[in-house]
Amino acid sequence: MKRRKFLSGAAAGGVVAGAALLASCGKEEAPKQAAAPAISEGIKELKMVTTWPKNFPGLGTGAERLAQRITTMSDGKLQVKVYAGGELVPPFQSFDAVSEGKAELSHGVSYYWQGKSPAFNFFAAVPYGMNAAEHYAWMLWGDGLKLYTELCDNFGVVPFMRASTGVQMGGWYRKEMKSMDDFKGLKFRMPGLGGEVLRKLGATVVNLPGGEIFPALQAGTIDGTEWVGPWNDLAFGFYKVAKFYYWPGFHEPNTTGEVLVNKKVWSGLSKQHQEIIAAAIQAESTIEKAEFDYKSADALDALINKHGVQLRQYSDEMMRGFYQAAAEVVAEIGNKDPFTKKVYDNFMAARARAIGWSKLGEQGFMNARSANFKT
Amino acid sequence: MKRRKFLSGAAAGGVVAGAALLASCGKEEAPKQAAAPAISEGIKELKMVTTWPKNFPGLGTGAERLAQRITTMSDGKLQVKVYAGGELVPPFQSFDAVSEGKAELSHGVSYYWQGKSPAFNFFAAVPYGMNAAEHYAWMLWGDGLKLYTELCDNFGVVPFMRASTGVQMGGWYRKEMKSMDDFKGLKFRMPGLGGEVLRKLGATVVNLPGGEIFPALQAGTIDGTEWVGPWNDLAFGFYKVAKFYYWPGFHEPNTTGEVLVNKKVWSGLSKQHQEIIAAAIQAESTIEKAEFDYKSADALDALINKHGVQLRQYSDEMMRGFYQAAAEVVAEIGNKDPFTKKVYDNFMAARARAIGWSKLGEQGFMNARSANFKT
Repeated sequence: MKRRKFLSGAAAGGVVAGAALLASCGKEEAPKQAAAPAISEGIKELKMVTTWPKNFPGLGTGAERLAQRITTMSDGKLQVKVYAGGELVPPFQSFDAVSEGKAELSHGVSYYWQGKSPAFNFFAAVPYGMNAAEHYAWMLWGDGLKLYTELCDNFGVVPFMRASTGVQMGGWYRKEMKSMDDFKGLKFRMPGLGGEVLRKLGATVVNLPGGEIFPALQAGTIDGTEWVGPWNDLAFGFYKVAKFYYWPGFHEPNTTGEVLVNKKVWSGLSKQHQEIIAAAIQAESTIEKAEFDYKSADALDALINKHGVQLRQYSDEMMRGFYQAAAEVVAEIGNKDPFTKKVYDNFMAARARAIGWSKLGEQGFMNARSANFKT
Repeated sequence: MKRRKFLSGAAAGGVVAGAALLASCGKEEAPKQAAAPAISEGIKELKMVTTWPKNFPGLGTGAERLAQRITTMSDGKLQVKVYAGGELVPPFQSFDAVSEGKAELSHGVSYYWQGKSPAFNFFAAVPYGMNAAEHYAWMLWGDGLKLYTELCDNFGVVPFMRASTGVQMGGWYRKEMKSMDDFKGLKFRMPGLGGEVLRKLGATVVNLPGGEIFPALQAGTIDGTEWVGPWNDLAFGFYKVAKFYYWPGFHEPNTTGEVLVNKKVWSGLSKQHQEIIAAAIQAESTIEKAEFDYKSADALDALINKHGVQLRQYSDEMMRGFYQAAAEVVAEIGNKDPFTKKVYDNFMAARARAIGWSKLGEQGFMNARSANFKT
């Protein structure tokens, strides 16, 4: 029953592109009443709504750490209180909550808002796009954050770049994937543009809240799923019901997060408090990214050596097929309207330059290291 | 005359390992008198000595940005003033200056202090070691920064991890390198452990201040040099006298920076001000790294398409030769004393785990992207 319900829902709505992780983390409880802001002795109470469950590893805990830090750095003048998805508003409504002033801040990922404009995708993750370092570079020193700010200005919101998760894993499969034909009719959980790519290849793509993925995989309602990477995936225990873990993840090579601030609230802050908030978010871009990197390395070790997970590399044929479909999906999205086209063109030009340098730098070094590691 | 002088100096002292970049940026002027700290209305004046010339791109400008930010976030209570190398103390003495309380903060790279303990190398860069993301992960979530703090405690100094430059380029050569024999007798400028590797392979390794590299290369006194990467290298104009630009740089795959704080000064700061300084440094770890990534991509494009630079990939034979020599050099250094051995073992274990994950994640994605980029 339950199974049929979510599958039919997914089929009806198609992939709620970008909304995936959001929905995955959203709780269905009714929003609680928020405390009224106390404006005494210059103390500002700032509500930070998030798209995550309470203390969700990396994402939820990062939001709490950020809030605590802003409070400490402002000597208690900025009291930031974190609300998990559903506590104050449903996770999908956190952008609107900040836009409308129901909350002062939000903590999420921009591809959740692609229903407002397809351009939002480029500030989060693009299949076969840029990795975390390349994306940070475009956001902070290229035109990324400028364009993002221009876009958000229409909604009375000021955006900040937040931590990336790094390259995500390709996903979990109950059976080995032998050829592209195996994707035809495959029931797979994948959000956003990546999901659109699999759909182009003949898969039945569904979107499920995180808590529903494991039972669905166990029951065979879905044949596979992606989530984040070794650290977060280990926590959900997917290895218990799907032994084949594929790499690399073409669909989300970075997944850069965001913090949004209500524009009126932002303008009303002192230069000191603005700088505290901006620096705290940028600090998290280092800390949380490093946490994903560090804990994923350990979790990968545990998955393979403790839980008997079978690692599989997608074949060249598959990676080529994903690439061709991704190029089509991204170009379609990128040409939907003039502003999105401006962002798409800018992103693609930065990507081409970044690839040129990565090939010689990061990629060149890592490949040389791999080639010689055993000697 | 001048040429002979620095070459004989280099020969006499061998590679002043680690000291290279330092010396490269140091100015020879006599230290100026520092302003006396003004302690009025709770305002603290903090002197930040650096190992860089004034406003040196990325490194010097990053120090100024950091100082300004700490001042803004503390609402002017912490007045941080940056001193270029040589202004207050010679660059090589900036660690001692913080240790002895002549300056409150310093901004540099830990391998400069390897004369005090070989362990300092592991918190900066190790040939064939970890890339920037892997090193950040070890420093912040593994034992890196803990061990670094333990080491610095002996000197009354509290260390912080600062931005990485990312993978450096292999370097500039006047002639193409055909085989390992070409390294025998090659006069090459390379600092630190990387220089020791080339020395093992028969090169005559010299260390030169940045400003002296170009004339030496032009005069043929040296056959080649490494510096940082496309962005910083373009500024020095090496392409005018050495056309062959080699990749990848095995010698400094990350080069993570540091900020040091005098321990008594640190202990005397409020929790608020401690958090402001820590967050500002971590924010710079995002911003400055992204600046290197972004500007190197553009500079690489200019070097190739505007300045006719010939890119060359080190052959497999060379990369294997570098690796074998690097493994020996690093093991020798790593076993010099019990504390260094503890750091070396910890670094190598984290490196092995990080490589396992990078191979599937960052490296796996980038290789798949390269393979399909032209389709």
